Amino acid sequence: MPKKVDHEARRLEIAEALWRIASTRGLDGVSLRDVAAEADISLGRLQHYFRTKDEMLLFALRHINTLADRRIRERVGALAASQGQDPPPRAVLRECLVGMLPLDEKSRVGALVGAAYFARAIHDERLRGEAREGIPKLAKFFADLLRKAQERGEVAAGRALDPYTEAMLLISLVDGLTAYTLLGVQTGEEAVGRLDAHLERVFGTGG
Amino acid sequence: MPKKVDHEARRLEIAEALWRIASTRGLDGVSLRDVAAEADISLGRLQHYFRTKDEMLLFALRHINTLADRRIRERVGALAASQGQDPPPRAVLRECLVGMLPLDEKSRVGALVGAAYFARAIHDERLRGEAREGIPKLAKFFADLLRKAQERGEVAAGRALDPYTEAMLLISLVDGLTAYTLLGVQTGEEAVGRLDAHLERVFGTGG
Repeated sequence: MPKKVDHEARRLEIAEALWRIASTRGLDGVSLRDVAAEADISLGRLQHYFRTKDEMLLFALRHINTLADRRIRERVGALAASQGQDPPPRAVLRECLVGMLPLDEKSRVGALVGAAYFARAIHDERLRGEAREGIPKLAKFFADLLRKAQERGEVAAGRALDPYTEAMLLISLVDGLTAYTLLGVQTGEEAVGRLDAHLERVFGTGG
Repeated sequence: MPKKVDHEARRLEIAEALWRIASTRGLDGVSLRDVAAEADISLGRLQHYFRTKDEMLLFALRHINTLADRRIRERVGALAASQGQDPPPRAVLRECLVGMLPLDEKSRVGALVGAAYFARAIHDERLRGEAREGIPKLAKFFADLLRKAQERGEVAAGRALDPYTEAMLLISLVDGLTAYTLLGVQTGEEAVGRLDAHLERVFGTGG
């Protein structure tokens, strides 16, 4: 096996150990040593791959986002297959947003790693960079879908907000719905119901 | 000074030390010993008031919520004084929601303690209880304001969602807007602009 692939595979194993801790007791106060123990390797070996907790967290977050992205693309792909090659923008947007909610084990672990990232990133300029780059990209993607829906007349008259504003509202909303689902304030089903009520208002009966 | 008051005052001093840490480096990995050092008391003395980090965090969170509640009541009171004894529900709701965003130092510290609470509460049944009790109460208060606005015809025709659903959407939205403001994805001003765009849609031109 080429050395580079081996290196990446080892980093993934360590990231998975981090996720297991994130999904059971959380990452507050978790040290590199704790993660090394969970991954069943020595601290020195772990530090060969990640020098700091933040480096490790960032890698784990990016990888989990890549997996989430892939899952969502698959769902959108399935939609394209069942609804024709060009599914309605509203349906694509809903698949993406529902895919961001913690409704199964994978998306739940993703949300928990995201929560650990958030708690640290608000105090760390470099970690914040990840959100400052990623969120506007996601918002732009959603804004393009909303613009397309408007152009096709799939948004009821008088409902259209500026697409980028609408996109940031949707991302913020899903973020809050995720938090209250993780806290057990609402069930996943209630979160989806609330998101759908909002989407119905965004698109009106035009969608 | 009665002993009970003294006890409460000392707990507040410790909570304030916790807030100072929350607003500078965050609470991830912070021990009781760190907080004792910041409060300039011994660890033993601190443990006389709080046995665990979670007890301390819960006390600090409740107190900061009480202070936030008081600030928002003052703002609503000022609104009542300037707009007559019965200000429009929409204006009261907006004061509450804007008051929840991290726009000044006090609300920012509140949001940071809230973020630290969130990161731990998702893994702790007892800590989650605080949100599971508090959020539905807040949602009920907002739902009552929305219902009042609907009854007064201050919500444009065809815009009304179920008030409790609307309230949970508003709370979730503000939660997400707070997160993205703390992460520097948007400015506080942009957060308020986005909230206002959403409120304009909720109330339409009837408000």
